[in-house]
Amino acid sequence: MEYLRVSEAQRIVLESVALLDAEAVTLEQSLGRVLAEAIRANRDLPPYDVSAMDGYAVRSADLTQVPVILEIIEDIRAGDMPRKIVQPGQCARIMTGAPVPQGADAVMRVEDTQEISADRVQVITTIKDGHDVRPQGENMRNGDVVLSAGTEITPGVAGILATVKATQMQVYRRPRVAILSTGNELEAIDEPVDMNKIPDSNTYALMAQVQALGIMPALLGIARDDPLELERYLRLGLEYDVLLVSGGTSVGVHDYVRPTIEQLGVAMKFWRVAMKPGHPLAFGVLHAAGEQAAQRDAFVFGLPGNPVSSMVCFEEFVAPALRRMMGHPRLFRRTVSARLAHPLKMRPGRTEFVRVQLTHDDAGYVASSTGTQSSGVLLSMARADGLLVMPSDSTGLAAGAQVTVQLLDGTAYQNETHIRE
Amino acid sequence: MEYLRVSEAQRIVLESVALLDAEAVTLEQSLGRVLAEAIRANRDLPPYDVSAMDGYAVRSADLTQVPVILEIIEDIRAGDMPRKIVQPGQCARIMTGAPVPQGADAVMRVEDTQEISADRVQVITTIKDGHDVRPQGENMRNGDVVLSAGTEITPGVAGILATVKATQMQVYRRPRVAILSTGNELEAIDEPVDMNKIPDSNTYALMAQVQALGIMPALLGIARDDPLELERYLRLGLEYDVLLVSGGTSVGVHDYVRPTIEQLGVAMKFWRVAMKPGHPLAFGVLHAAGEQAAQRDAFVFGLPGNPVSSMVCFEEFVAPALRRMMGHPRLFRRTVSARLAHPLKMRPGRTEFVRVQLTHDDAGYVASSTGTQSSGVLLSMARADGLLVMPSDSTGLAAGAQVTVQLLDGTAYQNETHIRE
Repeated sequence: MEYLRVSEAQRIVLESVALLDAEAVTLEQSLGRVLAEAIRANRDLPPYDVSAMDGYAVRSADLTQVPVILEIIEDIRAGDMPRKIVQPGQCARIMTGAPVPQGADAVMRVEDTQEISADRVQVITTIKDGHDVRPQGENMRNGDVVLSAGTEITPGVAGILATVKATQMQVYRRPRVAILSTGNELEAIDEPVDMNKIPDSNTYALMAQVQALGIMPALLGIARDDPLELERYLRLGLEYDVLLVSGGTSVGVHDYVRPTIEQLGVAMKFWRVAMKPGHPLAFGVLHAAGEQAAQRDAFVFGLPGNPVSSMVCFEEFVAPALRRMMGHPRLFRRTVSARLAHPLKMRPGRTEFVRVQLTHDDAGYVASSTGTQSSGVLLSMARADGLLVMPSDSTGLAAGAQVTVQLLDGTAYQNETHIRE
Repeated sequence: MEYLRVSEAQRIVLESVALLDAEAVTLEQSLGRVLAEAIRANRDLPPYDVSAMDGYAVRSADLTQVPVILEIIEDIRAGDMPRKIVQPGQCARIMTGAPVPQGADAVMRVEDTQEISADRVQVITTIKDGHDVRPQGENMRNGDVVLSAGTEITPGVAGILATVKATQMQVYRRPRVAILSTGNELEAIDEPVDMNKIPDSNTYALMAQVQALGIMPALLGIARDDPLELERYLRLGLEYDVLLVSGGTSVGVHDYVRPTIEQLGVAMKFWRVAMKPGHPLAFGVLHAAGEQAAQRDAFVFGLPGNPVSSMVCFEEFVAPALRRMMGHPRLFRRTVSARLAHPLKMRPGRTEFVRVQLTHDDAGYVASSTGTQSSGVLLSMARADGLLVMPSDSTGLAAGAQVTVQLLDGTAYQNETHIRE
């Protein structure tokens, strides 16, 4: 079997997985989830034309010639209703959010006026009809869909849900994810240090990657290189929506994992992708059996045993799949453009993901390698701000070359504002 | 009092707040927290020189002339220890992660060899000393600090914590945050619709913004425009590390909130910032009383009543403060460079934060306004991918101008990979 291109393998994964069913959550639990229903407005907002400023509700036609002195007929505060109609030569003192009275068609902000007396104000500039008036229904109209199904619940969306009193809503459920490490050479976190073993970091790095998507995975532990033990673990893992198996590096594991998975009915879609780090990477589907109509397909990712490779494969294939299952419209890491700080050599033939740190100068982002790119060095992943993507046809880049970097930020924060005010 | 520049107000806030004390969390709870202690390696990793590839452990000096046929003296798998010394003309079959035997100094990957018989292999390329060998201690050396205090726990860091068996660690605690809305005109989420009232969205938009930082805030509800009620609420709110008060839009609130806060001992540091949206924005500190040495300072942010203004002020001032208190080295939203899709007019004199959507073409990001920039229209915030920052000396920009956009992504995902492989 030949090596698949990264985009081709991503396509196979994303075409295989499906949106999960919906569940109800409260507004307090909803951040980061995706709406599985449309949300409608329950009122007009604003309920009538309101002032956008503290100032005076005026008739714009009165201000064709300025300065002009207007009579103040009443004070309207937010929550008040106007009692009078503004006639030519008149105005009303009005606060932000208060209803614009009949007769008035614009608001003159207080900074552009001069109060002559308690009931006289001088206006010094002209304004147009509608100026600083927020028209009825500008925010939302009663009955209109304000949020469609498929909308991710961000803080702004949470504000809108509160506005329409949606204290509970339908969202796509989260996939149940199980994580399994395999290999005789692995040492569990609660086992004593054995110099001849490798501490199992993959379980926890993958756990955190899954948690970063809002999902608490089940940690199945370590399966040894024994066909029966492996089968028992894999059978358990396949009861979840998604099973992540990170392989050990011993030949034994490679011997057992794939045949055992296939024996359990999983159809392998691919097991070789032309990327570095990343080899070997496998993906398979356990189709729901006919007699278990309610049961869903289960998906298995066979991830490399090397911790960096496993994490990179998670970012490029598993995270997009999990996000699609949860209904997220955006599947991939955000990219930024950066200049390369130093030359970078590369062997063509596979897409390379280089761990880089990003700094910022006047011309924008600068990417520099975190140092060793050995796939065993997890520290290089911990230090990385992003993954520089080297196309498979590249033989290398000179210092200063423009490159694309996938941001690894869990949240998109940086060290300085980098804004000019 | 004059209007402060955004950066000056940010400086005052960040100089006022302090790092909180530490608490212990388990590895499972640690994602996104910041280490309050240094973490040391408990072993050398790798524990000896190991192979980075499946292949043959060779003496590089044997390969000065190729092709050459070498004798295979043993098979070394991960977890095995070599039993023989590789002599000139010999090699050992070796798996990724297995110890490199004495005598050998490099690994020739299997793809660059041809097996002649069970104990004879032909090598066709030369390699240097150390090739595809991961030296002992490459990942970490026993006793060395592998993670310093102040490191944010990302998935990569979680993997390192697991590697050194740190099942529990000291992290900076999260601030306790209270949220209070004020104003007679506000309607609580559990009250019936009253056309003359404004639904309280700020409580929930702010709640979600605080949650996005990993903090579950206390929702105090709505304080009416009554001095005694307001004092009672503010007194309660000041028992938290940080109190967020979003003002109503009625004049009454402006009358009561500031004097009541000051009466409770809060020293106001500023209450005017030259930004749009954003007015009014206040910041104050309640210094811990002498007799309550254990008690910490409390911080109050007076946020605008307009939902968009309140959210923007949260992003620019409150989030950096909360992140600093939790020990995060990165305080501000990540920025990207984009081209403006359309002209943008602006009144100079204040920094303007324009809600924009980002698309991506061959030349990079393109920013376009989400539509109305009225600070009452929360939907424009919900639709925004970022805040385009217009400097205060700008009078506007032409279509195509390069602009800086603060990403609002809770997590940094986008719609397409935008990578060329």
